[in-house]
Amino acid sequence: MSFQEITPSEFFYRNRDLAGFSNPARSLYFTLRELVENSLDSCEVRGVPPTVFISVSAAEDGPRDEPRHYKVTVQDNGGGIPREHLANAFGRVFYGSKFTLRQSRGMFGLGVTMSILYGQATTNKPALVASSTDGVRYYGYLLKIDIKRNKPQIIKRMTGRAEGWRGTLVSVTVLGDYSRAENKIRSYLEHTALATPYADLTFRTPDGRLVVYKRVTEKMPRPPRETLPHPYGVDVETVKKLISAWGGEGGLKEFMCESFQRVGEKTAVRFLEYSGLDPDKPPRSLSEEEVIKLTESLRSYPHFLPPDASCLSPLGGELLAAGIKRLLKPEFLAVAVRKPSAYEGHPFIVEVGVAYGGPRLKPGITLYRIANRIPLLYDESSDVSWRVINSLDLSHYKIRQDDPVGVVVHICSTRVPYKTVGKEYVADRPEVEREIRLALREALRRLRAYLSKKEALARKRKRSNVYAKYLPIIARFAASLAGRRKPPSYSKLIPLGEVVVGERARG
Amino acid sequence: MSFQEITPSEFFYRNRDLAGFSNPARSLYFTLRELVENSLDSCEVRGVPPTVFISVSAAEDGPRDEPRHYKVTVQDNGGGIPREHLANAFGRVFYGSKFTLRQSRGMFGLGVTMSILYGQATTNKPALVASSTDGVRYYGYLLKIDIKRNKPQIIKRMTGRAEGWRGTLVSVTVLGDYSRAENKIRSYLEHTALATPYADLTFRTPDGRLVVYKRVTEKMPRPPRETLPHPYGVDVETVKKLISAWGGEGGLKEFMCESFQRVGEKTAVRFLEYSGLDPDKPPRSLSEEEVIKLTESLRSYPHFLPPDASCLSPLGGELLAAGIKRLLKPEFLAVAVRKPSAYEGHPFIVEVGVAYGGPRLKPGITLYRIANRIPLLYDESSDVSWRVINSLDLSHYKIRQDDPVGVVVHICSTRVPYKTVGKEYVADRPEVEREIRLALREALRRLRAYLSKKEALARKRKRSNVYAKYLPIIARFAASLAGRRKPPSYSKLIPLGEVVVGERARG
Repeated sequence: MSFQEITPSEFFYRNRDLAGFSNPARSLYFTLRELVENSLDSCEVRGVPPTVFISVSAAEDGPRDEPRHYKVTVQDNGGGIPREHLANAFGRVFYGSKFTLRQSRGMFGLGVTMSILYGQATTNKPALVASSTDGVRYYGYLLKIDIKRNKPQIIKRMTGRAEGWRGTLVSVTVLGDYSRAENKIRSYLEHTALATPYADLTFRTPDGRLVVYKRVTEKMPRPPRETLPHPYGVDVETVKKLISAWGGEGGLKEFMCESFQRVGEKTAVRFLEYSGLDPDKPPRSLSEEEVIKLTESLRSYPHFLPPDASCLSPLGGELLAAGIKRLLKPEFLAVAVRKPSAYEGHPFIVEVGVAYGGPRLKPGITLYRIANRIPLLYDESSDVSWRVINSLDLSHYKIRQDDPVGVVVHICSTRVPYKTVGKEYVADRPEVEREIRLALREALRRLRAYLSKKEALARKRKRSNVYAKYLPIIARFAASLAGRRKPPSYSKLIPLGEVVVGERARG
Repeated sequence: MSFQEITPSEFFYRNRDLAGFSNPARSLYFTLRELVENSLDSCEVRGVPPTVFISVSAAEDGPRDEPRHYKVTVQDNGGGIPREHLANAFGRVFYGSKFTLRQSRGMFGLGVTMSILYGQATTNKPALVASSTDGVRYYGYLLKIDIKRNKPQIIKRMTGRAEGWRGTLVSVTVLGDYSRAENKIRSYLEHTALATPYADLTFRTPDGRLVVYKRVTEKMPRPPRETLPHPYGVDVETVKKLISAWGGEGGLKEFMCESFQRVGEKTAVRFLEYSGLDPDKPPRSLSEEEVIKLTESLRSYPHFLPPDASCLSPLGGELLAAGIKRLLKPEFLAVAVRKPSAYEGHPFIVEVGVAYGGPRLKPGITLYRIANRIPLLYDESSDVSWRVINSLDLSHYKIRQDDPVGVVVHICSTRVPYKTVGKEYVADRPEVEREIRLALREALRRLRAYLSKKEALARKRKRSNVYAKYLPIIARFAASLAGRRKPPSYSKLIPLGEVVVGERARG
């Protein structure tokens, strides 16, 4: 038995299924998705409405409906990546700017690097990365990843005038299967446009056609901000990290105020009293036992304010409703936005829309999952949202088996608990499950109210249909009994609202 | 925007959902499973029938049906871990003995380390690891993982007389939920016993009860062997690695024979002719272009022998059938074992069993998934096997909607393409999908033959039931017409086979 250590590059190179790169169709989809999400994040951090150009083109001859090499290029107008980080950001696993507490599409800092690794494994072609942070000059590399060293291996450097362009361009060549990935890619872009109405997306297909999603608003949500952890849910490792990262002066009181969100001086004093720790003790002088005591107190103290969600940027009820209406054109729509909650110190917000009827929804439940504005398209049956839906008794909400119902669940968080590196579905953390359940119930209750009304209306309509059927006969009888030739006018007696036909007709 | 690099420990510590540790119930199950699988692998490498002791006990007070701290201990009689590797093997991510081409339950070399990371994050308790490789002395550590450095942090060393014990013991304290994990743990152990009939498993529950699975045979499958890669499917990175690892003498011809499986001198010579490379050229002197040329030729040369599966240790038709019969007691069973195939140079074998009827199967299709003798219990709907089942028209095989059918799919490979680090389900690699489809069809065809016969028999039975109903009447009529008092004997005329009642009765 021989022991050895491998690098992170090698681990993910060997195990690319873990990141979603399991077959040519899916890998092409993931490559495009990772590049686009990286670009949208970059634009939001810069605070400009994203203008993203996406292109997929065949990089070798071969039948259209078989796997072959494709070049995927994505260019944005984001903040760009400083020259000194450019090669590492894309050519090194576990190196990046996403390892902070901030709501972003990227979560693992792995996506683009995984795409480059996959391209390298399947086509042996280097990737092109280029960026400009000032609009004056751009810098670029043709690079591969040195898997044994987990370092970028630069093949060619380039630089030139940016002529006003600020942003990043990434181009990778991968083994793909466009004919099988096309539908997913189209849905992905459609749903992305829905969740990012302030973005301009242009997609050039391998046939050279352009698919354009124009922005419908210039208004952007507040850019996501970095945030401090919330005391609930931090663990010993996090507390140790915070202590060693803290550069402030003073004791535990100051440390508490400066290292956690929602902790002011008053709260800090009361909390430290509760924990039995000296407020003036410098945090670095805490013993292992005291750190554990501090952590356990943080998790159990009942009076911290709920986590601050100002760092999150949810879609909001209005924007969510507008997006759903545009995509599904439902007969009825109920939107429920939950208050912020947290799991393990990460704030999150659940927004749910329940749509009913209309021309686009198919019979049965259709689930649309969005997380930090990313549409999730694969493996939905494993997602926490499905679990919640399946656990509900829908007949309680007057929904019948084949009723056309669309459920949209948007989770936004500084850290969405994905269960795969490929960000395909959300793990069933109890806190998240609970919020989805509550939001869904709220929206479903409103749907039930609507369906009840509709049912009552339908009953009335049916009843009035019966009246409508017999009224002419009654009218004719009445006329003949009265010896008149013309039956009385009865058309006004068949309304849809309160039907009072009975009394009137007799009179 | 700040850039930073994180360690593999930190990555998996932050993202433990990726490895299946998403809630206390599931995490307890995964901890137990990772420890057990590590132990079974270790016994198989040593070549002794595994005797594994597993214990879960409450490590703090609290209500039984709520999450609390549990201590999970697993002790085996495997080969043990040499003293110099013991701390690193468990206290360092990406360090281990599983990064070779060998069929083993462990795949990522992450499992036990992840359990220790999870325990540390949730209970802040160190793990105990101890091992003896010679039965004379054991060595052990109480350790945590230094996440920032990805290194074991040793709290206490210990050593003593092993008194004949050879093997490894691991004990971790984790936040778990036994009441919710119990069913999964029970199924897991039951299915493990099925797939490892030569193992003795003893499980001590938190209530102190012992659940024992005795081995039913001492016969062990051939221990899995390390193997060379197959030429089909290797990529440039693998070829480069093979070249730099090759310590042999000579040129490409010798390199080919010594670095790949199923390549003898004749094949090497013909292949190098095909590729246009000089057989005497030392591999290290190849240029980048020549390496690419070599790789592409390896993938396209049509005359390599199929991958050698002698390194794999499948269950085999007989053992699989015995296992299924023990667990499901079906009315009918068809087993299909495919020939070895390969994806990306990794040989694999698919074995399928289709069981029908009997007292244990519920109506509908029940899928049992096993990979390298690990039962997979979570997320089955995302598994490639479900995809295959769903793509088949089961009515073609005479299976009706609520027929009780059990499908067992066992995949064994030097590398099972799992889609999550938690080894919950298998990715849909086209090669694997194809083999599952072919095996399943073969077994289903035999089930169809059985069901056809059964149907024919049922028809006959029904027909003969009709005869049985009317025969007494006919007999009485015949007797009275003939003027006899006693009707003729007709009981022999109602057989289940060829029913010839008609002719005989008339005669």
